Amino acid sequence: MKKIINDPDTVVADALLGIEEAYPQLRVDHENKVVYRGDERRPGKVGLVSGGGSGHEPLHGGFVGLGMLDAACAGEVFTSPVPDQMIAATKLVDDGAGVLQIVKNYTGDVMNFEMAAEMAAAETGVEVVSVVTDDDVAVQDSTFTAGRRGVGVTVLLEKIVGAAAEEGRDLAAVAELARKVNGNGRSMGLALTSCTVPAAGKPTFEIGEDEMELGVGIHGEPGRERVPMASAKEMAQLLVEPVLADLPFGSGDGVIAFVNGLGGTPLLELYVLYHEVRSILDQHGIGVARSLVGNYITSLDMAGASVTLLKADDELVGLWDAPVSTPGLRWGA
Amino acid sequence: MKKIINDPDTVVADALLGIEEAYPQLRVDHENKVVYRGDERRPGKVGLVSGGGSGHEPLHGGFVGLGMLDAACAGEVFTSPVPDQMIAATKLVDDGAGVLQIVKNYTGDVMNFEMAAEMAAAETGVEVVSVVTDDDVAVQDSTFTAGRRGVGVTVLLEKIVGAAAEEGRDLAAVAELARKVNGNGRSMGLALTSCTVPAAGKPTFEIGEDEMELGVGIHGEPGRERVPMASAKEMAQLLVEPVLADLPFGSGDGVIAFVNGLGGTPLLELYVLYHEVRSILDQHGIGVARSLVGNYITSLDMAGASVTLLKADDELVGLWDAPVSTPGLRWGA
Repeated sequence: MKKIINDPDTVVADALLGIEEAYPQLRVDHENKVVYRGDERRPGKVGLVSGGGSGHEPLHGGFVGLGMLDAACAGEVFTSPVPDQMIAATKLVDDGAGVLQIVKNYTGDVMNFEMAAEMAAAETGVEVVSVVTDDDVAVQDSTFTAGRRGVGVTVLLEKIVGAAAEEGRDLAAVAELARKVNGNGRSMGLALTSCTVPAAGKPTFEIGEDEMELGVGIHGEPGRERVPMASAKEMAQLLVEPVLADLPFGSGDGVIAFVNGLGGTPLLELYVLYHEVRSILDQHGIGVARSLVGNYITSLDMAGASVTLLKADDELVGLWDAPVSTPGLRWGA
Repeated sequence: MKKIINDPDTVVADALLGIEEAYPQLRVDHENKVVYRGDERRPGKVGLVSGGGSGHEPLHGGFVGLGMLDAACAGEVFTSPVPDQMIAATKLVDDGAGVLQIVKNYTGDVMNFEMAAEMAAAETGVEVVSVVTDDDVAVQDSTFTAGRRGVGVTVLLEKIVGAAAEEGRDLAAVAELARKVNGNGRSMGLALTSCTVPAAGKPTFEIGEDEMELGVGIHGEPGRERVPMASAKEMAQLLVEPVLADLPFGSGDGVIAFVNGLGGTPLLELYVLYHEVRSILDQHGIGVARSLVGNYITSLDMAGASVTLLKADDELVGLWDAPVSTPGLRWGA
């Protein structure tokens, strides 16, 4: 294992020190491993909290800021944060209008966020609502998941729902919007290599020089099948067609198209893939209202990519365009 | 070789199709492989042109836009663009106030940009001035370079000089500023793995599981020496101390601190490294005015990182803070 770390046991704590120093607009509660906004509080604004295992950066800490999350709980690598972290985050962002938890569908995350919601409510009276993302069409159940896994749509959801919270919508409206985004989004990914978890010290799975894992999870969980290495054009088909068939998306739909790198794949290759994705969408008569290409929900050093398509009406596109100022996504502010 | 490409021979052309589709605010001259701004022209503004071999994305195409470059020429992977590309770029951005070329110090780039400057001047009468970056303290001459290599400072320079051009400074002033930034900046990098050039199909160099290449170039050129794998804290020392000694930087100086990933290293590790860099700067009494952490000048899929320090006075910090709107860097706009 070759990594820029001091110790597998302190990698998340060490990274949080760097995050705090790199972004003066953010604050870090190091005891609870919570990244939160340092700008002025807005009484009456719904607080948005997310979090999950580390190793997916910039998700979630890199999406804290104006127009997106108010706080993110960092678990150990690929490990759910514990309820105490989420309770701390809830208290930090409670501005009297309730708190929305954005939770990727992994068993540990869902259970811990649920427990935290109940405990925070009991302790402080804050109203907490949870929305779970489960956009990965690859498999029904998986290593850490009952039902579908939450992946790329989480990024788009945090942006869109963050904008809605910023414009003053109430908790029920923000939660409804979050469910709408999740319901309108679908994803699938593939891996060319494994990732290596620091504490494990070796690759999570073995994979040959001539094959790839189609439908891989963001922790290296198995996908649908091992398939032979293919061209970017073929990879785009393998990813886009199952996504389109699932919702289903149809001719005349407009989407936000998101091509995401898993951490070890250079941007050059993501642009090649994005062009192939666009070509397939064109063939289906699907318009691309907005797009996002880059490393946003990663799997440590895994080489590979995922495609997320979000059916986007004027409301979602308008909220997507609203100002955002976070380390990972920034425009208009 | 496992890459998301169609064909090693078309990877740059294919990526440029994706770049054009991903960023509606940009335009691409596909024949000349030039990425340029699609927003309104500003008569009397100095045009900024850069470029170089591809494989370093987001550099340079991802830095085209308001407050940074006006055009970027994309060579084949790790190969200088040819003069025809640079002449086309020069014509595209000439708004009557002359054109500044920002050139990384590699023999092919320097020669081709020089030739392009003369030919463009002869053909159209446009005044072209060239500034060469050579901030890498690792080695004096190198595989593709007489003198020092141009690396991380190029990113900072394009941002700062782009802001100065945007505020209407003339060509002589913009060129003088560019030389000031290059003179005030120093960098060094290290690699944990090689990169793999698509056309070569195999890693550029071999490296053992227990060693790293200290002072590596952004094309995988040899650095100072092979050293044993080390902790993030030790890596920070190996990178920061030679940089500090070279200018030299001293107690009381303020810097823009830039920790850059080489493409295959996850953001999580860059934050760990950044914290260690900050600790060393603290020990030296050097203040960090601004910082940048992420993958900005990459070497395809190479795992590793570089540190760039730029001695920054109020002028440079003010220009750094000015609005920028490019795919790779964006704030205030």
